[in-house]
Amino acid sequence: MIRIIHSISELQKWSMDQKKQGKTVGLVPTMGFLHAGHLSLIDAARAGGADSVVVSVFVNPTQFGPTEDFDQYPRDFEHDRRLCEERGADVIFAPAVSDMYAAPVTCWVEETEISKGLCGRTRPIHFRGVATVVTKLFNAALPDLAVFGQKDAQQAAVIKRMVRDLNFPVRIIVAPIVREEDGLALSSRNKYLSKDEHDRALSISRSLFAAKKALESGIRKDALAETGIIRKALEEAGGVVDYVEVLDPDSMMPLTDGSVRPALFAVAVRFGSTRLIDNLRVERA
Amino acid sequence: MIRIIHSISELQKWSMDQKKQGKTVGLVPTMGFLHAGHLSLIDAARAGGADSVVVSVFVNPTQFGPTEDFDQYPRDFEHDRRLCEERGADVIFAPAVSDMYAAPVTCWVEETEISKGLCGRTRPIHFRGVATVVTKLFNAALPDLAVFGQKDAQQAAVIKRMVRDLNFPVRIIVAPIVREEDGLALSSRNKYLSKDEHDRALSISRSLFAAKKALESGIRKDALAETGIIRKALEEAGGVVDYVEVLDPDSMMPLTDGSVRPALFAVAVRFGSTRLIDNLRVERA
Repeated sequence: MIRIIHSISELQKWSMDQKKQGKTVGLVPTMGFLHAGHLSLIDAARAGGADSVVVSVFVNPTQFGPTEDFDQYPRDFEHDRRLCEERGADVIFAPAVSDMYAAPVTCWVEETEISKGLCGRTRPIHFRGVATVVTKLFNAALPDLAVFGQKDAQQAAVIKRMVRDLNFPVRIIVAPIVREEDGLALSSRNKYLSKDEHDRALSISRSLFAAKKALESGIRKDALAETGIIRKALEEAGGVVDYVEVLDPDSMMPLTDGSVRPALFAVAVRFGSTRLIDNLRVERA
Repeated sequence: MIRIIHSISELQKWSMDQKKQGKTVGLVPTMGFLHAGHLSLIDAARAGGADSVVVSVFVNPTQFGPTEDFDQYPRDFEHDRRLCEERGADVIFAPAVSDMYAAPVTCWVEETEISKGLCGRTRPIHFRGVATVVTKLFNAALPDLAVFGQKDAQQAAVIKRMVRDLNFPVRIIVAPIVREEDGLALSSRNKYLSKDEHDRALSISRSLFAAKKALESGIRKDALAETGIIRKALEEAGGVVDYVEVLDPDSMMPLTDGSVRPALFAVAVRFGSTRLIDNLRVERA
């Protein structure tokens, strides 16, 4: 039986015990409602050298804006517990909101550069909430390594910057996006999509992979122009585009010209009331 | 010979080794130019249960404003090394600025309530720099406990709030103010004072202790009125007052009436070009 830990101090004690036994601790932070993408992060933690893996399941209120879907965010702890156990995680850390936020937070961790573009423009408090809760999770789980998904590319970049700037003794592993067979990037929010919306949302991965193919094959050469082509494809499928951008994959700063060396295409788009994000790396053009 | 460590990763390794040996690690963060106040923090770390004590000596640029005394701040590493060794510290952590800030910081730790009054009003980036560098020092030294001086009462309160909100597994000990025989609170900045300024600065501790005596003995009863009496004494001694306030010692929020239950009087005042702070707790009135 997988061990379920609810209290921060109990998790700290568990982690320190692991280390005293010479074991490397890996953390997989999630908001639950787990899918194959999350489960691949458990595998990545093992592959990265974690002897003991803790999956945190916590829908973090401080990263949702007042009009966002915190209350509606899907939750199914028994489902999550079963999947984590099957995949061989050692511990689920499932704190109550009232324990993680026993008093109103007045001390925040805030990244001020990478977090400002892309999703940060429409979700102004989101990455402050993410950086703060990940700091709390790091201080609770005391991991040697932590795994984040490339699906949330901006989040992964913010966390890497946080670890660099604040000297957390944590190695960050970014695991590749897991997609459905039809190409849609896995997301807990996919469950919101109707069948029709799901079909139209396939325009995201199709347009991203088409851009990659066009640029890498040399059929087209201008990465900036490619963002317009992607945007058009999304809009033709009925999507309401938040952004289509092409970035330096390391700095996450927008490319200022169209040359690829390499580049990351990043998309956020709504189909119906569901906001989806995706991204794809292009190696050369 | 006391061990000198310059690199963050070496300190992390040292600390983890201590813990593997079952030893409790205590951190004493300082900006160097050590005096008896700092040395009392080493004693407090031992008394608090630290088997191994690391004193960090780092003049942190990010907590100084552009017009403040970062460049002029007194430094004397050989003096600090000798005092730490005599007092029985195990390690001095003395990183270079270029190692602590290898790249421009874009991720900050910021307390948004306690840090805004008192010194935060005239030093708007100070406590953001303090909280960020203490986070970095915690992540470098991985201490079980850390000791701060009551002299910097607002700093100690900000750090305690940071530890609470971000779940650092670090016990915070606040050690009492150490004073010269004449009452002046020890500070590395006291060396800036001329003999005359030093004499006039004695008005700080004299007026604070007079307020404490008047309130605790029942001669006077109104803590708010007492701040006016302190301010007058400082100005009569030629001080330029930044603030004289009376606060709830736990929340560090200003008292809204004059009753003491208990209360903390806090002062910041310039004599010549030297800004001094002091504070005193009054138990009852």
